[in-house]
Amino acid sequence: MNNFDFYRPTRYIFGHGCENDTGSYAKEYGFKKALVVSGGNFAKRSGLLARVCSSLERAGISYVSLEGVKPNPRADLVYKGIELGRSENADFLLAVGGGSVIDTAKAIALGIPYEGDFFDFFLGKSKPQKALKTAVVLTIPAAGSEGSNSAVIEKEINGNIVKNGLGCDFNVPLFSVMDPELTFTLPAYQTACGVTDMMAHIMERYFTNTQNVDVTDRMCEGLLCSIIANAPVAITEPDNYSARANLMWAGTMAHNNICGVGREQDWATHHLEHQLSALYDVAHGAGLAVMFPAWMEYCLRHDVMRFAQFAVRVFGISMDYEKPERTAKAGIAALRAFLKRIGMPLNFEQIGAHSEDIPKLLDMLGVDDHERFEGHFVKLHRSDCEKIYKLAAEYRD
Amino acid sequence: MNNFDFYRPTRYIFGHGCENDTGSYAKEYGFKKALVVSGGNFAKRSGLLARVCSSLERAGISYVSLEGVKPNPRADLVYKGIELGRSENADFLLAVGGGSVIDTAKAIALGIPYEGDFFDFFLGKSKPQKALKTAVVLTIPAAGSEGSNSAVIEKEINGNIVKNGLGCDFNVPLFSVMDPELTFTLPAYQTACGVTDMMAHIMERYFTNTQNVDVTDRMCEGLLCSIIANAPVAITEPDNYSARANLMWAGTMAHNNICGVGREQDWATHHLEHQLSALYDVAHGAGLAVMFPAWMEYCLRHDVMRFAQFAVRVFGISMDYEKPERTAKAGIAALRAFLKRIGMPLNFEQIGAHSEDIPKLLDMLGVDDHERFEGHFVKLHRSDCEKIYKLAAEYRD
Repeated sequence: MNNFDFYRPTRYIFGHGCENDTGSYAKEYGFKKALVVSGGNFAKRSGLLARVCSSLERAGISYVSLEGVKPNPRADLVYKGIELGRSENADFLLAVGGGSVIDTAKAIALGIPYEGDFFDFFLGKSKPQKALKTAVVLTIPAAGSEGSNSAVIEKEINGNIVKNGLGCDFNVPLFSVMDPELTFTLPAYQTACGVTDMMAHIMERYFTNTQNVDVTDRMCEGLLCSIIANAPVAITEPDNYSARANLMWAGTMAHNNICGVGREQDWATHHLEHQLSALYDVAHGAGLAVMFPAWMEYCLRHDVMRFAQFAVRVFGISMDYEKPERTAKAGIAALRAFLKRIGMPLNFEQIGAHSEDIPKLLDMLGVDDHERFEGHFVKLHRSDCEKIYKLAAEYRD
Repeated sequence: MNNFDFYRPTRYIFGHGCENDTGSYAKEYGFKKALVVSGGNFAKRSGLLARVCSSLERAGISYVSLEGVKPNPRADLVYKGIELGRSENADFLLAVGGGSVIDTAKAIALGIPYEGDFFDFFLGKSKPQKALKTAVVLTIPAAGSEGSNSAVIEKEINGNIVKNGLGCDFNVPLFSVMDPELTFTLPAYQTACGVTDMMAHIMERYFTNTQNVDVTDRMCEGLLCSIIANAPVAITEPDNYSARANLMWAGTMAHNNICGVGREQDWATHHLEHQLSALYDVAHGAGLAVMFPAWMEYCLRHDVMRFAQFAVRVFGISMDYEKPERTAKAGIAALRAFLKRIGMPLNFEQIGAHSEDIPKLLDMLGVDDHERFEGHFVKLHRSDCEKIYKLAAEYRD
């Protein structure tokens, strides 16, 4: 186990109807004016935004609203939010939505007190020194941003889309209000995308070269088992509170790093996927469903026993002690079968991606065959990434 | 899953040699004067206390030292600490030790700004309104107090020992410094007591009437599996860093309530045991090893399938689908075999307790056959508790 310094002080308020008290929670922290960030679609139509805003009013907190966050959120709206937050003297951000909304709010919270361009932080040109606090009313269990220290924002620079993440303590939400009922109306496809995203967050941590991380291995495996059990229920019975609640809590645990401490993490698949969703505007979860099994296939021989452990403990495959590689492969096949069952795509064609674009994806990824690489479990240079994209492109069920 | 409000903002600094930087961590929070609480035995002989104090000095933090905390910590020393902290103007508590030391520090931290008797908080007569911050250098993985909101203190009142716990946000440590190497010299018996305590913390949460808590079930089971795998290694190879590290992190996860959210918890066994350790001054873990299997035996029929799930997922027992009770019982037998293997006692005789004292234990417990009871999984009145104590007294290997 590696040394670590873990600090995730988010307060989680979880359960039936808790969003109706958002204002009173915010009041506990002495806030006066919220910048409420939302997608403005589900949140508005469902009446959620109105309910949250009226809870702010009841608590004597005024607010200004910024709507229109889209999936794979863009820097444009962040700039708009920074301006609005400054001119309206907002003293905290309230994100009402899923990962894209929360990440937009986090970026605005960093940008308001910063004199330069907030995207400097995402380009690694500058380090945040302060930020407003961000609170969350979660509507989509997927990105885990409600408990994580990370945010991902896209910006067009010189005609190219740059999609970058930033991890820092300022990004950890102050409190997150989580009512599983808010996810009853999530369509099956979006539910499945969320499920795939949270599984990927765990697997990025699970596949590691760090030895003797048994506690976190077991926690990862337990979360995966639970997600695999609850996802099909949530998809076939969208208003099953228990399934929705288990998925929602699993999504937070998957990415607040409680399962990732003390171990090297990989994250190649996320970077490989980010290029897909930047180029085709495909849902992040769907892109991950295509890329993760391909990555696993490519990396399997790096540590057959770890993939075998995954197969046995997560998918209940019987261990083949003579030929562990068979078990390892059966685990990847079981993952693909599960993803297919919940309606996820498994190859390029199914997400409208084209193998001819692979060189472009590789350019966007920006790794070469020498110094720059993706991933820590297996260091992937350009030619490796090319092979993984090809595996993903060519996979046939 | 039940609604919950979860807030555990402790920062965990974990790994080789991190205790040597305790001072610089404390300095980040602006502290000027520490009241350093310790048992004064291991911490002193091993040079740990001197190293921690010199790290405080290097960081420009002065300190005053309170030594002599004993297992099952007493109120006397808390009063002494409150006086010392006030007269020396300490602005934070630094606990260097295990659960007893940490709990003593937490109680002092509550008592310093309080005008009345701090034990009022533990008797439920008064609620804490403020407290000094407590930081920790952990030396014994067991009580989980380094990440929990609870503290347990004993006080003699009218000739009787009253052992009470208090859970509140003020009890959550600010930061905990955790170096597994500090536990290399823990004797096998004490290691095993700690292991039993952390397993009990998980099982008190695991045996619940709350339905559909799959995520936390799986996390509990994963932690238990990992403890069961690592404990025998730590006992036979005391300086095995990996085993010690996994146990140390598992002990924190077992009790910071990350595995207990959204579910009714039981805690009868802890209360049954507290009377044993109050009357005989037996180690809490040893008392739990005697009481937990007895409690399980008594409660088995309340929910056979939950005990069967425990047996299958934690101890790898094959499910008997025709007679699940067999599986459930095999799980309890496996737990006893494990506890025996790590050197734990399994009945009254082995801890110097006497079945003749059962009426006295029941009086101390203070439950009756009508309104007052212990436990939530099964509500235990006096006659139930009597039967459980008898099972524990009479168990023969």
